[in-house]
Amino acid sequence: MVDYEIFELGEVRLQMGETLRDAKLAYRTYGSLNQAKSNAIVYPTWYSGQHYDNEWLIGEGMALDPAHHCIIVPNMLGNGLSSSPSNTPPPFDRARFPHVTVHDNVSVQHRLVTEQFGIQRLQLVTGWSMGAGQTYQWALSYPEMVPRILPFCGSAKTSRHNFVFLEGVKAALTADAAFQEGWYDQPPTKGLRAMARVYAGWGYSQAFYWEELYSQLGYSSLEDFLVGFWEGFFLQKDANNLLTMLWTWQHGDLGATPGFNGDLERALGAIRAKAIVMPAEKDLYFPPEDNAYEVRHMPNAELRVIPGVWGHFAGGGVNPTDTKFIDDSLKELLAQEV
Amino acid sequence: MVDYEIFELGEVRLQMGETLRDAKLAYRTYGSLNQAKSNAIVYPTWYSGQHYDNEWLIGEGMALDPAHHCIIVPNMLGNGLSSSPSNTPPPFDRARFPHVTVHDNVSVQHRLVTEQFGIQRLQLVTGWSMGAGQTYQWALSYPEMVPRILPFCGSAKTSRHNFVFLEGVKAALTADAAFQEGWYDQPPTKGLRAMARVYAGWGYSQAFYWEELYSQLGYSSLEDFLVGFWEGFFLQKDANNLLTMLWTWQHGDLGATPGFNGDLERALGAIRAKAIVMPAEKDLYFPPEDNAYEVRHMPNAELRVIPGVWGHFAGGGVNPTDTKFIDDSLKELLAQEV
Repeated sequence: MVDYEIFELGEVRLQMGETLRDAKLAYRTYGSLNQAKSNAIVYPTWYSGQHYDNEWLIGEGMALDPAHHCIIVPNMLGNGLSSSPSNTPPPFDRARFPHVTVHDNVSVQHRLVTEQFGIQRLQLVTGWSMGAGQTYQWALSYPEMVPRILPFCGSAKTSRHNFVFLEGVKAALTADAAFQEGWYDQPPTKGLRAMARVYAGWGYSQAFYWEELYSQLGYSSLEDFLVGFWEGFFLQKDANNLLTMLWTWQHGDLGATPGFNGDLERALGAIRAKAIVMPAEKDLYFPPEDNAYEVRHMPNAELRVIPGVWGHFAGGGVNPTDTKFIDDSLKELLAQEV
Repeated sequence: MVDYEIFELGEVRLQMGETLRDAKLAYRTYGSLNQAKSNAIVYPTWYSGQHYDNEWLIGEGMALDPAHHCIIVPNMLGNGLSSSPSNTPPPFDRARFPHVTVHDNVSVQHRLVTEQFGIQRLQLVTGWSMGAGQTYQWALSYPEMVPRILPFCGSAKTSRHNFVFLEGVKAALTADAAFQEGWYDQPPTKGLRAMARVYAGWGYSQAFYWEELYSQLGYSSLEDFLVGFWEGFFLQKDANNLLTMLWTWQHGDLGATPGFNGDLERALGAIRAKAIVMPAEKDLYFPPEDNAYEVRHMPNAELRVIPGVWGHFAGGGVNPTDTKFIDDSLKELLAQEV
């Protein structure tokens, strides 16, 4: 009784050298593939999100309309549905789950799209946050397949500051002795709650809190928001899974794609897709200037800032204004000839 | 063999209702009080800072010149030198140390200045971060004594977002089981290190990390900076002291001054001192817009933003450009007739 499919990957050799055996890629599709297999969109997940967390941007009358498109949402490795520390049998389970890169994720997604669906060309790749990182990777690795990209609130390479923010998240989670270096049998709830509180200050902007906009999300006070939204979200997650995805995020680097020798600017320059790159005005860990730098090195890209005070969560589907702004841009991009 | 003096406060009734008995206020003076007792400046400390951490802004040829002024640096309650969880005997020691407000701090500093030194009027009050909060309080509580203030990188009331940032710091520190709800005999080093890593992303701006400016501070890599600067700083501190000052910070509210009934705008409006209010352009927890709001309600204040990418630490004395900018403004303010 699950709402997703599993694509059996078999043995996956990872960029960092280890092998995932009997690997699984969980995914869901929205809408049907047409006869020409020309209406597919790939929309990867984000840090700890699962496919259903992407559904706010999919719907009738929206850019990502299942009546017109086949929207494929692949779950990131480590997110608890695809192969993850929490669902991999020994000996590669829990604290021994291997390091997975953005490149690895996109590589297995490409297998899904080509082997399972026989698709040769997509309409678009889009994604939020770590999903944006995967979007850049799709465009670089499979230029002939990806004519359009719309990465939002993410980056091609994780900045040093973003890395430091994640160090804080990781340190809070792993400070809990119950974490037991990953060998817990009971979840390290104190660490998960601590990580949630650390995350809370980063996820939304200073102005969001100043204006008490959490009340628009149904929370009756600041503490209600910290417990109800933030702790509630991370308490559902597996600590090792979170750390696997955190490692993927911290080491996100488009320049590390084989053939580019760490040269990020050359990698950005090799993206042929028509791109609208959309940071949020007050995103505290993916600030607009980082995307501005990227766009300067991309031959076919526009920087379009999502205005307002919702910070990183401008791309999280939590308010209709930002959702419409993103959806309108997706419509515009999809309407363009490429 | 200490470089500071102790002012014996005796019994101090605190704003929240508890009493500090046999309380101590540690302070240091730089320069001599003149015969007219008219050349004193008060320069309070900041979160976990001690008097010597303020010395970068004091010196020959600077605005705060010991040859001309008597600069009094009082240590905040809870900072390990003034009465603190770490130096108070039972039963009010460690986890039982009472809650102390900004108002309490300034109240005992006022006793030092008037009872110990017999000063009736100061030249100036200035301070960084929590020191800025104490600066506003001085101006409101003792308007006849304080003709000029220059609060930098701080605020009159702790904003909700700032509160949330501190929730993350606190959660990381207290997630360590070794903290034992404050009854540790050995320091909770894992929690202290975790808190340091959380703090690291907040203390300096995104652009500071992008430009690797920690190399200008003598650190050879990002990890070297995280361990050497951040963990090194907090490992020296006592966890209960840090939590005492954190509580003071989280509950900073000029509007809670007796007589103002929580009305922050009325409190700001009652500040008579000539003020230059100086946020740092990229301060992540005291953003300039918060000070802009305050200045709109202060009758005699100018907002002057410290430009650049050093974030909160623009006010920490770690780079000569920002130090000169602050020092120049102090000189300008001190030169003005009031």
